[in-house]
Amino acid sequence: MKKKQYVVVGLGRFGSSLSRELMKLGHEVLGIDLDEEIVNDMSDELTHSVVADATDEDVLKSLGIRNFDCAVIAIGDDIQSSILTAIVMKDLGVSQVVAKALSELHGKVLTKLGVDRVVYPERDMGIRVAHQLATPNLLDYIEISKDYTIVELSVPKRLCGYSIQQLDPRAKYGCSVVAINKRTGVIIAPQAGDVVNENDIMVIIGTNNQINEFENQVIG
Amino acid sequence: MKKKQYVVVGLGRFGSSLSRELMKLGHEVLGIDLDEEIVNDMSDELTHSVVADATDEDVLKSLGIRNFDCAVIAIGDDIQSSILTAIVMKDLGVSQVVAKALSELHGKVLTKLGVDRVVYPERDMGIRVAHQLATPNLLDYIEISKDYTIVELSVPKRLCGYSIQQLDPRAKYGCSVVAINKRTGVIIAPQAGDVVNENDIMVIIGTNNQINEFENQVIG
Amino acid sequence: MKKKQYVVVGLGRFGSSLSRELMKLGHEVLGIDLDEEIVNDMSDELTHSVVADATDEDVLKSLGIRNFDCAVIAIGDDIQSSILTAIVMKDLGVSQVVAKALSELHGKVLTKLGVDRVVYPERDMGIRVAHQLATPNLLDYIEISKDYTIVELSVPKRLCGYSIQQLDPRAKYGCSVVAINKRTGVIIAPQAGDVVNENDIMVIIGTNNQINEFENQVIG
Amino acid sequence: MKKKQYVVVGLGRFGSSLSRELMKLGHEVLGIDLDEEIVNDMSDELTHSVVADATDEDVLKSLGIRNFDCAVIAIGDDIQSSILTAIVMKDLGVSQVVAKALSELHGKVLTKLGVDRVVYPERDMGIRVAHQLATPNLLDYIEISKDYTIVELSVPKRLCGYSIQQLDPRAKYGCSVVAINKRTGVIIAPQAGDVVNENDIMVIIGTNNQINEFENQVIG
Amino acid sequence: MKKKQYVVVGLGRFGSSLSRELMKLGHEVLGIDLDEEIVNDMSDELTHSVVADATDEDVLKSLGIRNFDCAVIAIGDDIQSSILTAIVMKDLGVSQVVAKALSELHGKVLTKLGVDRVVYPERDMGIRVAHQLATPNLLDYIEISKDYTIVELSVPKRLCGYSIQQLDPRAKYGCSVVAINKRTGVIIAPQAGDVVNENDIMVIIGTNNQINEFENQVIG
Amino acid sequence: MKKKQYVVVGLGRFGSSLSRELMKLGHEVLGIDLDEEIVNDMSDELTHSVVADATDEDVLKSLGIRNFDCAVIAIGDDIQSSILTAIVMKDLGVSQVVAKALSELHGKVLTKLGVDRVVYPERDMGIRVAHQLATPNLLDYIEISKDYTIVELSVPKRLCGYSIQQLDPRAKYGCSVVAINKRTGVIIAPQAGDVVNENDIMVIIGTNNQINEFENQVIG
Amino acid sequence: MKKKQYVVVGLGRFGSSLSRELMKLGHEVLGIDLDEEIVNDMSDELTHSVVADATDEDVLKSLGIRNFDCAVIAIGDDIQSSILTAIVMKDLGVSQVVAKALSELHGKVLTKLGVDRVVYPERDMGIRVAHQLATPNLLDYIEISKDYTIVELSVPKRLCGYSIQQLDPRAKYGCSVVAINKRTGVIIAPQAGDVVNENDIMVIIGTNNQINEFENQVIG
Amino acid sequence: MKKKQYVVVGLGRFGSSLSRELMKLGHEVLGIDLDEEIVNDMSDELTHSVVADATDEDVLKSLGIRNFDCAVIAIGDDIQSSILTAIVMKDLGVSQVVAKALSELHGKVLTKLGVDRVVYPERDMGIRVAHQLATPNLLDYIEISKDYTIVELSVPKRLCGYSIQQLDPRAKYGCSVVAINKRTGVIIAPQAGDVVNENDIMVIIGTNNQINEFENQVIG
Repeated sequence: MKKKQYVVVGLGRFGSSLSRELMKLGHEVLGIDLDEEIVNDMSDELTHSVVADATDEDVLKSLGIRNFDCAVIAIGDDIQSSILTAIVMKDLGVSQVVAKALSELHGKVLTKLGVDRVVYPERDMGIRVAHQLATPNLLDYIEISKDYTIVELSVPKRLCGYSIQQLDPRAKYGCSVVAINKRTGVIIAPQAGDVVNENDIMVIIGTNNQINEFENQVIG
Repeated sequence: MKKKQYVVVGLGRFGSSLSRELMKLGHEVLGIDLDEEIVNDMSDELTHSVVADATDEDVLKSLGIRNFDCAVIAIGDDIQSSILTAIVMKDLGVSQVVAKALSELHGKVLTKLGVDRVVYPERDMGIRVAHQLATPNLLDYIEISKDYTIVELSVPKRLCGYSIQQLDPRAKYGCSVVAINKRTGVIIAPQAGDVVNENDIMVIIGTNNQINEFENQVIG
Repeated sequence: MKKKQYVVVGLGRFGSSLSRELMKLGHEVLGIDLDEEIVNDMSDELTHSVVADATDEDVLKSLGIRNFDCAVIAIGDDIQSSILTAIVMKDLGVSQVVAKALSELHGKVLTKLGVDRVVYPERDMGIRVAHQLATPNLLDYIEISKDYTIVELSVPKRLCGYSIQQLDPRAKYGCSVVAINKRTGVIIAPQAGDVVNENDIMVIIGTNNQINEFENQVIG
Repeated sequence: MKKKQYVVVGLGRFGSSLSRELMKLGHEVLGIDLDEEIVNDMSDELTHSVVADATDEDVLKSLGIRNFDCAVIAIGDDIQSSILTAIVMKDLGVSQVVAKALSELHGKVLTKLGVDRVVYPERDMGIRVAHQLATPNLLDYIEISKDYTIVELSVPKRLCGYSIQQLDPRAKYGCSVVAINKRTGVIIAPQAGDVVNENDIMVIIGTNNQINEFENQVIG
Repeated sequence: MKKKQYVVVGLGRFGSSLSRELMKLGHEVLGIDLDEEIVNDMSDELTHSVVADATDEDVLKSLGIRNFDCAVIAIGDDIQSSILTAIVMKDLGVSQVVAKALSELHGKVLTKLGVDRVVYPERDMGIRVAHQLATPNLLDYIEISKDYTIVELSVPKRLCGYSIQQLDPRAKYGCSVVAINKRTGVIIAPQAGDVVNENDIMVIIGTNNQINEFENQVIG
Repeated sequence: MKKKQYVVVGLGRFGSSLSRELMKLGHEVLGIDLDEEIVNDMSDELTHSVVADATDEDVLKSLGIRNFDCAVIAIGDDIQSSILTAIVMKDLGVSQVVAKALSELHGKVLTKLGVDRVVYPERDMGIRVAHQLATPNLLDYIEISKDYTIVELSVPKRLCGYSIQQLDPRAKYGCSVVAINKRTGVIIAPQAGDVVNENDIMVIIGTNNQINEFENQVIG
Repeated sequence: MKKKQYVVVGLGRFGSSLSRELMKLGHEVLGIDLDEEIVNDMSDELTHSVVADATDEDVLKSLGIRNFDCAVIAIGDDIQSSILTAIVMKDLGVSQVVAKALSELHGKVLTKLGVDRVVYPERDMGIRVAHQLATPNLLDYIEISKDYTIVELSVPKRLCGYSIQQLDPRAKYGCSVVAINKRTGVIIAPQAGDVVNENDIMVIIGTNNQINEFENQVIG
Repeated sequence: MKKKQYVVVGLGRFGSSLSRELMKLGHEVLGIDLDEEIVNDMSDELTHSVVADATDEDVLKSLGIRNFDCAVIAIGDDIQSSILTAIVMKDLGVSQVVAKALSELHGKVLTKLGVDRVVYPERDMGIRVAHQLATPNLLDYIEISKDYTIVELSVPKRLCGYSIQQLDPRAKYGCSVVAINKRTGVIIAPQAGDVVNENDIMVIIGTNNQINEFENQVIG
């Protein structure tokens, strides 16, 4: 993997979590924030961290921003700073600029200014948690298309000892078991004879209706 | 599907997004916030919405909170209110209480008070976006276990017309293609002869190393 | 007496008074407050005093908090800090944690978090002063049980020269004189011939009704 | 008992607790506070409660303050209001004025202005709690004189079944047992044969040294 | 002249002056401001004036903004509102959007968002006043090109009675007299025999150097 | 040209722009502002810049203010400081004092205090921009008298290739072409045969009606 | 005496005291203040009192200000409002305008704007109290000229029974006794045989030195 | 004259004016204020000036306050500080304490605390200015008793050349001329033949009615 250089502006909860994860993935991160205390707290965890005003072009130049592979604007609540930082970043020729938006309107401005990717962390996480709440055994999921989803379902006590054949989601509900995560390891593409136990996690692919049915009739 | 009743305290970006998604999923939501303007803005989108102080036990009682299936405490920045609301909710006997935490310490307090599930939306979203940034073709992913992940990778122009057999991720990298999302529909468990085109999305399962190798050598 | 080590967080009126008294009783006290001026003012009176944020686990660790016998959280008005300090203290394994609560709800949270003793100084003092106001000659009292109380009553001028026999509270009202505090010293278990003078203080034990009657008929 | 009329200015934690206790003791209380919400919250618990500025002589006159038996100035943190209320109360001829002081200097001013009794709830409670912390089995106490104290000590498991004779505090330590509070009732002036059990509370009178010795050697 | 419809957002010193002048020129103006008092003050002078938040798309729609010929964003100091208003105006399809910028960066953002014309009133007026101060007899001027300017110069007492021939700016300095503004009227393209008097205003065209020389040698 | 010495009080958008232009015109400028950051930012662009309170006579004296040729009071929003600075400047004998006014009333006070020239930058710029908006091809203008104006009009594509004779503004509308600004240079007093091209700028003199007619019929 | 009409702007300590005294002297007073509570408090004591912004010309016109005999600008701490009110009052043609100044500079501005009389209450009272402190028996004084003063001196016990002849201030110190204020009445131009008693007040005229000598040698 | 030592707490307009005058009268002044800038401004004009909190007994002790002859508490608007400073000053045994009061109630508290003299500068100055406004020729006055006053009246042009005999205030109005202040000097007890001129100042003694009549009939 090629090691990349990221600059992250705004080290709040979202920005700091993102920065730490990039570090874990083996990349370099320059963290920028206006708050000295926050910068100090992060200084051990990031490649570099500085107190700076990212809307000031001269400051960004002196930090050599144009050499970074990607800039992430993770500014918390200050829409003005977010927008001004975005335009300065694009002006300086940063090749990829990603920015967090607080509202649709904010996102629209960022896009118009040439920001390459706009993310809405709170909105997206709200949606994700809603799904998890609505389906009690749902641990996580990704939407493959408008219709198809892959879900992780935890196996309830009641189903302990059942084989895939007995549950037979494909025949009965049209969805397939992609994998089973057991304490002893992950079984990819499990066979009919494989048995689930309590706390195993089944990874299922299917249409939303198929999965809903399976979840309601079998798991829930 | 059984329709459930949720109460969501705090209708900021996270809480409002979560509430809307629960409504979309066919459930009932009572939204509570201290800010009258926010409550008015949401009133058309939720079953009910009220201006109320959720740390006041009498207020919650008069709203019949104990009859709700689940309470979500999505309070923005006020740790004290979050904690006091949590204890009142538990005291009133709400069967499931989910709360957003702003920090590990906050999360620890919520857990000690009996909150059933603590979520860290900004932290989790930071991690998720970090992965997407680090792997340019990665659209989304779920972690199956510490080792195994399912990823969505967008097919670059360069690979247009290749068959699964030609790419052969299982033989070369050890990971399997779970599905291909094409404009024309989703192919579950694609065959060796299925061909990918630009902008198709491949859904791959494998260990992190296998997927990394595949992504770097083939896709990236 | 074994000398103990206390840490007191919050050096306001309650915390500073408590700290000073612990020092007088021969113990060691580390005082912690966020306000530098307050810490300086107390520095001569306590074993140690430091400016520190007691919700920061690293800070508390570096102060060796786990070696203290007892932590008193006497934070004035900031419920959030009080709660977060409590959980950190318990996490660090401080053997006894005592905390001041501002409300019933606050107290309930502290208890749930494992705080060993919750005190309500303003509430308790309100009750104590109410009793003193309601009984003009009452100087102090302790409740022995729901029914029995020991009270200190000051002897009014009018009763000057009366002997215990003449007043005879046991025969007439059912309550006994435990002691008389005279300028010349305390008489424990006074005899029938002992005489009271103005400004002597009688210590009486009895039921609330007995004492009330005696106070109203004889003293008041 | 004669029912008295109190006016309490300031319905914070101390003032509201004091007011409630006076009501419980059968008296009438007029509560005054500047905060409408606080006044509403207390309106059901007090004889009367009004939103008013107690530094305004005309307001107090119109409330008929001079007819009250006692005024308690329980204002939280505003020394100026406390002082101005005190002088107005005295000017209006309220027969007894009691005021809470925030500092020695504040107390001195109140006394000079003719306030009949100055109380320091946080300071006094700090001292009281310090004693309870320093003596783990101490439940409550009153100081009879500089030397003599009456204390309540809880009987530890270890002493279960011992008779007063066996413990013999008078012979060994010089202090006497005034009473024993048992679940079954209070024994006043217990005899040599009376036996203590776990969770009984012994009420002891003696000099501080005597009690300390007894507590350390026998109870602690 | 075709009567046009303008909407002016922000009725501060710049916006109100611009609005009034557009009214004087025979056009219609809808004034929008967040401040009720300002809106009331302007209500008699504009076609319509409303208190509204111009960053709210629904509000602008309900005002029928898309039917206006031109929107002027004259918001005082709030860069965020200026930017959000600009994008909403463009989204709604207002055919011409003009906006006041507070800084170069702000202006750059506005341009990127598709604002048709960005004005810098304070900056431009600073330049204009500087010229007037630097040339004491300069009343006003327009720059024709980088080199050529037309200036208004007031005729000093000293030159009273001189004819154009005597002053002869064209022959001596290379610049021409375009007009003379006399109390009795304006002489366009004055002849050699026309005479200037005190307080007449000469309108001169020439290169900056020519005019400077003429001003210094003849007028100043 | 004689180099002059200016002092500019208040280095906001108007003051800084004015200062920079005076420097460009070859003069010396001492900039004064209360804000240290602003003074630092300007320090390279002005002869001198200092952090100082210009309402303090002693400070101004120590800066040798009386030796400056002109003082410009460009204070942003603080009417009191503007007025007090004005009187101190006049008291110190500065020969010319120019001040920016925020309102008519403010301007009236400044005039009464002897300020030599009062400017209203936002108001004047509002008027100027209004004219430019109302006449789409109008680039700039100066008013010669109540009736006569000189305007710059940009030549639209439609008129490309027309000669002055063909357009003949004098015969048809009564106004004359003073100059044409072409890419190749400025033609002063153009002849009948001179031809205009797209993006040329015509400089026209005439009465407002004449110019309006010409603009509407020919240019617009 | 002719009844006059005054308008007093600003009803703080100075303005309200001045207004009340003018009422006592039989005149009419319109009081103006921005603070509704202050206006209500004064409404019974003045002819009229209104809540109004005195810097708003239209407001003053609607109050018929030009018909008042005198306007007193007694605004507390807001120099800007004081100045703007002054110019509006003069513009409206109020025949006499008196204003309180907070500093010399403020006073200078007011004078330049045509204010008829500027007063410095705190400064003047500071001077007056200084004299009273420096001369313990001095009750009050007026300066007649740079050299001569009339003073009121209280007669100390020691001089009780002395006649004017015995004290003889004219012969010994050069100053004369203008009057003696005795409990029984004032003696104008007392005779040699008139006798002073304790607490009588002597009114003396003389040069400052004469009075000083007399005060030090005889009275002090 | 004996040089005295004063301490003045609060160096606002009243306190600084009082301090300066005491210095002029030859005394020593220690000025105390919380505001460093104010203390610096006064440092050249007073014997000593320090930044200090005068409610802190230790601070005052270290300044040797008990050795001063008089303490003046001239604190501007902070009633609490004024009161606490007063009690500390009295406790420290300062022999004379003078304090400025903001209201009657404040004055009453100060008196109760033992302050030797309470002054109301704004109130007193309001009264004084009211008299001067009500009587246009009145320059200054002192009240000798409830009935008698000494006034300074300026002689209007109309009376120029009149002798005392012609004006004859004693015969016609009952009041006497104590002195005339002429440019050439003060005439004490003027004779019948002495003549007044324009701008002379007559010093008159009489009852309020007598003086009013004289002023209205002769001077006004």
